[in-house]
Amino acid sequence: MISVAEAEARVVAALRPTGPETVSIAEAAGRVLVAAAIAKFDQPPAPVSAMDGYAVRAEDVANVPATLRVIGTSPAGHPFTGKVGEGEAVRIFTGGVVPDGADAIAIQEDADAGAHSVVIKSSAKPGRHIRKAALDFAKGSVLAPAGKRLTARDVALLAAGDVASISVRRKPVIAFAATGDELSRPGEARKQGGIVASSGYGLAEMIARWGGTARDLGIFPDTAEAIARIADADADLIVTLGGASVGDHDLVRKALGPKGFVLDFWKVAMRPGKPLIFGKLCDTPLLGLPGNPVSSLVCAMLFLKPAIAAMLGTSANTKPMTAKLLRELPANDQRQDYLRARSEIRGGELYVEPFIVQDSSMLSILAQADVLVLRAPQAAAARTGDCVDILMLE
Amino acid sequence: MISVAEAEARVVAALRPTGPETVSIAEAAGRVLVAAAIAKFDQPPAPVSAMDGYAVRAEDVANVPATLRVIGTSPAGHPFTGKVGEGEAVRIFTGGVVPDGADAIAIQEDADAGAHSVVIKSSAKPGRHIRKAALDFAKGSVLAPAGKRLTARDVALLAAGDVASISVRRKPVIAFAATGDELSRPGEARKQGGIVASSGYGLAEMIARWGGTARDLGIFPDTAEAIARIADADADLIVTLGGASVGDHDLVRKALGPKGFVLDFWKVAMRPGKPLIFGKLCDTPLLGLPGNPVSSLVCAMLFLKPAIAAMLGTSANTKPMTAKLLRELPANDQRQDYLRARSEIRGGELYVEPFIVQDSSMLSILAQADVLVLRAPQAAAARTGDCVDILMLE
Repeated sequence: MISVAEAEARVVAALRPTGPETVSIAEAAGRVLVAAAIAKFDQPPAPVSAMDGYAVRAEDVANVPATLRVIGTSPAGHPFTGKVGEGEAVRIFTGGVVPDGADAIAIQEDADAGAHSVVIKSSAKPGRHIRKAALDFAKGSVLAPAGKRLTARDVALLAAGDVASISVRRKPVIAFAATGDELSRPGEARKQGGIVASSGYGLAEMIARWGGTARDLGIFPDTAEAIARIADADADLIVTLGGASVGDHDLVRKALGPKGFVLDFWKVAMRPGKPLIFGKLCDTPLLGLPGNPVSSLVCAMLFLKPAIAAMLGTSANTKPMTAKLLRELPANDQRQDYLRARSEIRGGELYVEPFIVQDSSMLSILAQADVLVLRAPQAAAARTGDCVDILMLE
Repeated sequence: MISVAEAEARVVAALRPTGPETVSIAEAAGRVLVAAAIAKFDQPPAPVSAMDGYAVRAEDVANVPATLRVIGTSPAGHPFTGKVGEGEAVRIFTGGVVPDGADAIAIQEDADAGAHSVVIKSSAKPGRHIRKAALDFAKGSVLAPAGKRLTARDVALLAAGDVASISVRRKPVIAFAATGDELSRPGEARKQGGIVASSGYGLAEMIARWGGTARDLGIFPDTAEAIARIADADADLIVTLGGASVGDHDLVRKALGPKGFVLDFWKVAMRPGKPLIFGKLCDTPLLGLPGNPVSSLVCAMLFLKPAIAAMLGTSANTKPMTAKLLRELPANDQRQDYLRARSEIRGGELYVEPFIVQDSSMLSILAQADVLVLRAPQAAAARTGDCVDILMLE
């Protein structure tokens, strides 16, 4: 058995980023930049007003009230092309370009408008209510670096910088196959004593959220012939659900050995999820997740999420936060534990209460949980109120 | 001006849930249940083994070593149909149905297998390593309640309960229109002194993430005729980007009044984002967001997110967390403030550092931020180390 950290490191080290593809800015959210996104022009492109009011010369309003002649207007999108001279003002609106000659904005709340003139009642220092050219960003500046996964806010920023399309990593195709004679699909006839294949439906959503393209290969019976067919999937990474426990592991190796499977590691010192296979099928990485749905989904969070991030040329944020325990926990054994738990905020502090029952077959508990509490191997018993590391669930 | 809380309450109160539609479990993640999802059978359907080993009668292994006759096998998906009698055992694998007569599992690590017999070396109490029928959930039990937005884990749980399709709220269509003569699309010729329409690209991703269907109506010039056309959009809610400041507000009301627009409120005591319009165009709610991209995206988080949740028959989680300040803040004025800030975890505690510059035109700052720090109206000055309320950004 190897540690969780070593297993993650070996998975990540075995993967290479996918190639680039070009997408429009409207399709860019959640994608990972191959190269830095660069602003195509200054934002704002010229000094603009931050308020509705009058563009003035500060020296003309040093003594107020001051009556100025209104020589034009400068709404957003329609710059005034003349120049503001002594004793003159231009009516201006938020986002309007500040005309030549003016160096301050007198806001309309402090002005009395006449037919062709305005009385300014408060003085304004040079630069008042003016957004300088390039205040937000300058032409040529980096709006988002290579390797950044773009948020909605990044996408808005890139659009503002006139970036119409970008080069991003191709979404890695993650093909997954459930193995097991006991499995049926939801709504199909169930087998005697059998159960319904479930974790793939959750896994597909997680793969999409983490930036991959999920491909459901279906359910495969526990025969070497069937499992060998999984190796034929055209994918960047193949995931098996089940097929990692002792007997299954032998079957998987027997079935996939002739297809070029080389094992990297098997078994990780963790709970849920000890039986985990990682290796390569010729050039295609293969991750064998445990059959228990809780184990498979927790292992996906710990190993498939960083695997997809590595294929996108970035890294997954798996840094734990901390919270205070709402009940005591016994000392831990040699396996790193991921306890399903419920969190709540009390007086601004985050508390967590691990569920009493932690059976790895119980999806109902995983669905009710919103955090996982990490327990290091050999961790001492913890008391109510102690701080523990946690991972937030979706 | 009304408060943020009152504005949110009035938006939510004005909205009705969309109708139901049926989707397959493979499309169910992120959707909101119209009715509770009910388990179609017990999980597991029968007592099953939690380990690889031997199904035995506990009384037969009370004294060990005990030699038992192996009368069959019970792998997952292939139940043994006979009965385990005195002195007998059945080879069993994880997930295999525990045969009649057996009441405990002896794990294989504690057994020596012979040709037709096995020597059990550790005793096992009744129930040991057996998952009872319905341990995870019973037939007829609620797997997820009405109004629940389904996580990936919920979807796996529903699949496990043999739920093949579910009734969910139809995704509300959110049509949005940017208004402003100064705007162009990314990659198109920019106008003189003009800027690129940006917030819609971020907004579209947010709408999708919050459970709606985004429809980009495009850019509309600042004329009553153009803005009146926005009213013709077929949508559950119409959003304008820009069109809420003083002059624009007059224009929007003039343009949409003949289309049946009735104002609910205008102006919210907040920063960024004071100019915010909410009302109804006949039966269609209309939310007029400010033109500044930072204001529009922050207001979308505060008002459009709960609006979409209300249309989905659920509520948005907008409860703030708390964090410690890494720098002092001045006293606040009468507007509720949403300061863009960066967070970091130090020694397990969450700290936030608001950016010095908080100009509402600066998308670059919003993109760099990962939290918003809330400052209540008239909040006193805060010192380094004080606790403040925060909202996590995407």
